Amino acid sequence: MALRVFCPRVMSPSALLLLLPLLLLAGVPLAAAATRPALWPLPVSVQQTPNLLYLSPVSFEITHGLDSSAGPDCFLLQDAFRRYHQYVFGYSENPDVSRMSSSVGTEIQKLVVVITSDSECNAYPNITSDESYKLVVQASVAVLEARKVWGALRGLETFSQLVYRDSYGAYVINETEVTDFPRFPFRGILIDTSRHYLPLKTILMTLDAMAFNKFNVLHWHIVDDNSFPYQSMAFPELSGKGAFSHAHVYTHTDIRHVLDYARLRGIRVIPEFDSPGHTNAWGKGQENLLTACYAGSQKTGFFGPVNPILNTTYDFLSTFFKEVSQVFPDNYIHLGGDEVDFSCWKSNPDVTKFMEEQGFGQSYEKLESYYIQKLVDIVSSTNKGNLVWQEVFDNKVKLNPQTTIVEVWKGSYYEKELSDVTAAGFATVLLSPWYLDYISYGQDWRRYYYVEPLQFSGTSTQKELVLGGTAALWGEYVDATNLMPRLWPRASAVGERLWSSKQVRDENDAYNRLTEHRCRMVRRGIPAEPLYVGYCEL
Amino acid sequence: MALRVFCPRVMSPSALLLLLPLLLLAGVPLAAAATRPALWPLPVSVQQTPNLLYLSPVSFEITHGLDSSAGPDCFLLQDAFRRYHQYVFGYSENPDVSRMSSSVGTEIQKLVVVITSDSECNAYPNITSDESYKLVVQASVAVLEARKVWGALRGLETFSQLVYRDSYGAYVINETEVTDFPRFPFRGILIDTSRHYLPLKTILMTLDAMAFNKFNVLHWHIVDDNSFPYQSMAFPELSGKGAFSHAHVYTHTDIRHVLDYARLRGIRVIPEFDSPGHTNAWGKGQENLLTACYAGSQKTGFFGPVNPILNTTYDFLSTFFKEVSQVFPDNYIHLGGDEVDFSCWKSNPDVTKFMEEQGFGQSYEKLESYYIQKLVDIVSSTNKGNLVWQEVFDNKVKLNPQTTIVEVWKGSYYEKELSDVTAAGFATVLLSPWYLDYISYGQDWRRYYYVEPLQFSGTSTQKELVLGGTAALWGEYVDATNLMPRLWPRASAVGERLWSSKQVRDENDAYNRLTEHRCRMVRRGIPAEPLYVGYCEL
Repeated sequence: MALRVFCPRVMSPSALLLLLPLLLLAGVPLAAAATRPALWPLPVSVQQTPNLLYLSPVSFEITHGLDSSAGPDCFLLQDAFRRYHQYVFGYSENPDVSRMSSSVGTEIQKLVVVITSDSECNAYPNITSDESYKLVVQASVAVLEARKVWGALRGLETFSQLVYRDSYGAYVINETEVTDFPRFPFRGILIDTSRHYLPLKTILMTLDAMAFNKFNVLHWHIVDDNSFPYQSMAFPELSGKGAFSHAHVYTHTDIRHVLDYARLRGIRVIPEFDSPGHTNAWGKGQENLLTACYAGSQKTGFFGPVNPILNTTYDFLSTFFKEVSQVFPDNYIHLGGDEVDFSCWKSNPDVTKFMEEQGFGQSYEKLESYYIQKLVDIVSSTNKGNLVWQEVFDNKVKLNPQTTIVEVWKGSYYEKELSDVTAAGFATVLLSPWYLDYISYGQDWRRYYYVEPLQFSGTSTQKELVLGGTAALWGEYVDATNLMPRLWPRASAVGERLWSSKQVRDENDAYNRLTEHRCRMVRRGIPAEPLYVGYCEL
Repeated sequence: MALRVFCPRVMSPSALLLLLPLLLLAGVPLAAAATRPALWPLPVSVQQTPNLLYLSPVSFEITHGLDSSAGPDCFLLQDAFRRYHQYVFGYSENPDVSRMSSSVGTEIQKLVVVITSDSECNAYPNITSDESYKLVVQASVAVLEARKVWGALRGLETFSQLVYRDSYGAYVINETEVTDFPRFPFRGILIDTSRHYLPLKTILMTLDAMAFNKFNVLHWHIVDDNSFPYQSMAFPELSGKGAFSHAHVYTHTDIRHVLDYARLRGIRVIPEFDSPGHTNAWGKGQENLLTACYAGSQKTGFFGPVNPILNTTYDFLSTFFKEVSQVFPDNYIHLGGDEVDFSCWKSNPDVTKFMEEQGFGQSYEKLESYYIQKLVDIVSSTNKGNLVWQEVFDNKVKLNPQTTIVEVWKGSYYEKELSDVTAAGFATVLLSPWYLDYISYGQDWRRYYYVEPLQFSGTSTQKELVLGGTAALWGEYVDATNLMPRLWPRASAVGERLWSSKQVRDENDAYNRLTEHRCRMVRRGIPAEPLYVGYCEL
């Protein structure tokens, strides 16, 4: 029997109600029939029957299918199998193995994972990674099929969300069929380790929670004006003098750990080394990198953006970004380019002279362009693509749409900006409506959920250039003490918006699922804050 | 030498600057002279010299003075001595005892605590408890003098805040004299365990943080519409049916634990059992307690406030509050009385009939008064005073100013309300400007800090009726996952406003001290969120 009782794209809640009498007539108890999995984000298609299958924590296993292209040497999956076994059954369970009861119902003995194409087991995910999967849960073996390991990871998360406990505490799952794939290929979380240093543990826990919400990009805003925690091999003084302290740095071992942990969860790590503005901390460990500011003919002792007129600047950037391109495996690097304050450049007589020589007139945007174009060339020579903040586009820097992605972050008129950026042929990622550092009283997740990223004027070709979005938790007021409850489950709203179908917009349904999903996160060790009044089952 | 370098009531920061050259001339290194203890809340008077005294984690001890009225049988102080030894020296220190170095400077060997009056060692604190103390830190013995243990607790906190570590990691303290007492005797934190259940651990951690900020009242809004976690002996069904689950209750052992833990920190626990509104959860385990609502002549199945017309209501309340008065030792109980919705009373024909019989006309305020007056009589018969929300006063319930304290909570025109309440001779506690559940972006602690509780029109007699205030963290959006970083250090701003002198209002100075104080809280295990960009010394 494969009776549809729940399929969000096909069946409305009222249709479900119409089905209930049918289920009751068929002798199916209402409780079971009414059980609604709190899936988050909602898959593209879910079909369930009221038939319950039982799972034993003692004997249930997740294994490779015989016809899978991945096997026990696929450590990524091995690790995921162990992890999801723990998520499904909890960590503290201690069933009495000697008292195997005769099954109370139909048992499901294993979940078999089949990778049907080249597994990409040892690869890093990228913008084209296939995350689709198909999950069939039926007695006595469930099958999760995906072309790549990335889809398998997403399917394992969905499987773990389908299992629940009946009123006797037994682990059960309904007969289910899920077909699923993401709406957008770029689903990011931005963390900021410059305004406050985040311990490794907090970053790893963030990656865990990202996997629970099917996010796939960690946008690591690693350095900024306030501190430079990235420990460079070529320029150790950058963190030696630019970090808050010698303890507030990320060593290469730390970064390696983050990269591995992320890869195992199908998450890309895109580092942002923002310049020429937001670089105050760079100047502490790298002499003559920043522009000296003047008051009249006197140096003030203060420094402005990176000095764009010196050859030494570009020598430094070449060496530095060559290192960065080797440390971070992702094929994109974020180059920043936002909020460049021209006043210091204007004050500096050498810069003024350079402007004249270059014939830039009074256009400091041209000077910025000069800098960014050289920087982009440097990074391109390492075979990396780049992301930039919208000002780089707004200021008409010549960019190559094949290698540059423009990130839209400004709060007002972002629809217009999406329109302009995509009209110029650039791929784009949206952040504007998802600045999670702006907190407010009440259920602001609804505001994030409400956003429709493609609601701007443009052709379908333009819409296809929207790769996705990023929930940004800037760090001015955030450190390890409050990051987790501030990020989750508020970011989950963005997670569903970027993964699920466009039609998935029912706020009440989302509220119910998200309430349960946040409790699931809490049970898995993520201190995700409550949506509203209530409690979590222990 | 007893050179004043820091005394907030007497000396301005500019005066301190004038002194600096003097200190430098005297051969005192600037770093030491400039060392400014990050005391929070700021004591009434602090005098310091640049002379440094060294403390050894191995041999330093906190002991009873020979002439103290308290000795080793004063468990409250014994416990505090141990606790503050840990706070001063940290938990993870492991000095090499076999290598006692010759002291690098003058040593301070012990802190002697002298209680000069009846110690009240085994008592519970109350509104008249004396929290004043005097602390003299000099070689080789520091002396903390207080009339009662309550002052000693506050002085120990101050002492612990004076100790810091020099650049070699040695524990040092400046020669110091502190004279201190609170501006207001009622300095509260409100927690809400009905909208979300808070585990015992969270409540105890809150009490720890309260002690660090010299708060002395835990206003425990224990039950409300949403759940009834208080486990009653007389009416076990109240929590049996009214709690979120059987796991979400406070047993008498739990409550005992909270009361003891609070007493040891000089903190009163005032439970609030709000009625006749906000009682939805009471009705689940106590039949006929709530008013049945009607639509026309039909019961709707919904219930409104407590039914004020039945004798059984008052029988229940007598038994219930007799129990509560025995379980909670504080001599005040909070009776609530806010936001009574009259619509259900209006719909109920029996209530209508009763109104007619009593000659109340259409004044449901009179019915509310009828109820509250009977409730207050019941509670008064247990020899407890009571606190009520402002509506009880606004609705002109006859109250006795000797036994009732009116709490001002409404957001608008609270100055007017303070004026009216005190003009009528009632003592009052202010909450309106300190609803910490209303979060917003940025440094809202400044708004809480800015408040001056006595800035309302009234005579000095009226001003004296302002007992203090309470920072309220209502629980709609707060549970164990986010309570701590949301409460601290935002509540600390209220803590200083209620403890320190009226003149202590310098926001920049407060920012610097509070930044350090929040790091101190973090080091002591409280995940207090950051004020702004920066980091804590590890």
